[in-house]
Amino acid sequence: MSDSPPGAPRSLPAALPMPDLRDSFPGPFPISPHADAIERHADDWLTTYPLIGSPGARAALCNITSQGIARTLPTADIGSLFLCADLFLWLTAFDDTCGETAGADDLAELVRRSGEFIELLAGHHDERSAVEPSVFGASLRDLLARFEERATPTQYLRITAHLRDNFFGILWEAHHLHAPDQVTVRDYRAMRPHTVFVRTVMAAAEVALGYELTPQQRSSTAVREVESAVGNLAGWINDVASYAKEAAHGGPGPLSLPTLLMHQYDCDIESAFRRAARMCEEEAVILRSRLTELTAGSAGELADHAGALESIAASYVWHIGHSRYRP
Amino acid sequence: MSDSPPGAPRSLPAALPMPDLRDSFPGPFPISPHADAIERHADDWLTTYPLIGSPGARAALCNITSQGIARTLPTADIGSLFLCADLFLWLTAFDDTCGETAGADDLAELVRRSGEFIELLAGHHDERSAVEPSVFGASLRDLLARFEERATPTQYLRITAHLRDNFFGILWEAHHLHAPDQVTVRDYRAMRPHTVFVRTVMAAAEVALGYELTPQQRSSTAVREVESAVGNLAGWINDVASYAKEAAHGGPGPLSLPTLLMHQYDCDIESAFRRAARMCEEEAVILRSRLTELTAGSAGELADHAGALESIAASYVWHIGHSRYRP
Repeated sequence: MSDSPPGAPRSLPAALPMPDLRDSFPGPFPISPHADAIERHADDWLTTYPLIGSPGARAALCNITSQGIARTLPTADIGSLFLCADLFLWLTAFDDTCGETAGADDLAELVRRSGEFIELLAGHHDERSAVEPSVFGASLRDLLARFEERATPTQYLRITAHLRDNFFGILWEAHHLHAPDQVTVRDYRAMRPHTVFVRTVMAAAEVALGYELTPQQRSSTAVREVESAVGNLAGWINDVASYAKEAAHGGPGPLSLPTLLMHQYDCDIESAFRRAARMCEEEAVILRSRLTELTAGSAGELADHAGALESIAASYVWHIGHSRYRP
Repeated sequence: MSDSPPGAPRSLPAALPMPDLRDSFPGPFPISPHADAIERHADDWLTTYPLIGSPGARAALCNITSQGIARTLPTADIGSLFLCADLFLWLTAFDDTCGETAGADDLAELVRRSGEFIELLAGHHDERSAVEPSVFGASLRDLLARFEERATPTQYLRITAHLRDNFFGILWEAHHLHAPDQVTVRDYRAMRPHTVFVRTVMAAAEVALGYELTPQQRSSTAVREVESAVGNLAGWINDVASYAKEAAHGGPGPLSLPTLLMHQYDCDIESAFRRAARMCEEEAVILRSRLTELTAGSAGELADHAGALESIAASYVWHIGHSRYRP
């Protein structure tokens, strides 16, 4: 697949073809007036819970997260914005520091660490336990308590279910990171929404914006199709945005859509990127069309949900160009 | 720890000291009149979904499951008994054939297989997909559809959350099976209720018996303490009951309470068994006392829940002597 020796940083073409999503998501996207306050809060929260060692990585993550959440939830109150930003910081920090390469290098350790979180999600931890929680455990406990306070019991169950799926996704990725050729595009597509955390963002948005779909609405084809398109687009956009940065680490290539398309079509990286970009563009067209259908004539929770999904998609479209992804 | 060479079946003392739980759970335990019907149904269900190859293992599993479920839910209607029996067959068959030793030998394959189930639990699978589900996937889909039909949305969310924890528990076990000395008794105690599926049984019982705790009841200390004692007792009883059978496979010793106690106290297997038996007996005393407190003066859902937990505990107490666990 590559002329570079295994493990060597591969040289990438100077400009890989990125998707052009302006027809479907022309922007500019609404943004909360609290973006700067979120960034200051995020920095404070990471002072209380030092999840990230490198000051540069921490500053970049606070910036992209605050800007992203301000676009994900442009109309939410400041407390909800802080909470959703902290959740996303937590997931990204855990994935960056304990999942991915570190997780793949010590799978049993990743499983052990995740065990602490599964207890917290299930609510079975002993509050009188003499064992100190890890910093990730303590900060997850803080997040869960804040969500439990704001969410209905059903909303809380849905968030904690999606978080379990995120942990499974991180484990799944770690088990395949060194062997992307073992992963089919189909399996990857099924798992990708969990590793990009987008279903968790959808569940958190319902809490932040104070609405709740009925079970009938949630299982309707219209809602399922929009959610599925948002899930696909979020993962694929992240893949093309982060490819160059991740490829700079060397190894067998990032476990990411372009890598899998190179394998599937036995093509070079530029050609795989063209395919990936086209997939993003086509999914954005599908999403725009489904969003229009869902919005037309809907009211109440369905209209709230369509609006939330539109902003969630917009935040992923926006973040293609963020400097976090420059290698 | 052992004089046997690694990998050799170790010779066990002829009679290991088993817990005596008659003071706390004297029996005889109520049993549903439908036990034989459950066993016939279980055999039919495993004809539709051939999850187990060996006819002997299949017959033994159908027998212990039908007898166990008939004691777990002595008052439930026959449809609920069939459903809960099938769920337990499924979990046990998956754990026996794809978790444990097979899972530990190919962790990536276990993660890949579990990925199919995570999609089903999250409800994100594409019903028009051209990809054939595995036999475990198809049968899990059948179970989930039947639970969804009977359960409230919250009950369904709770069952699917506990099933995710079971899959995590199976993965956790597979990652540690060959290195039980890496596992602390504390971590083991936290994970054991998930690997013995007892929380899932509790959630299924609420559906089968048609009651639902309020969030306040569920988070009360009284309920949490009873559930925690049932969770502990179920796992530890299973450990002492299945030790001899599992030890017959050879290897570094079953990942089970007696093995961990041997490590922790640097003692022989008989002494570890005496400790494990005492732990079971003490936990049964605690459970009996908490059950008495919970039952006294409670009515409605709380009384239903106390009754369900009493029967769930009784079914685990009963199954110590079943022939499935003879080596």
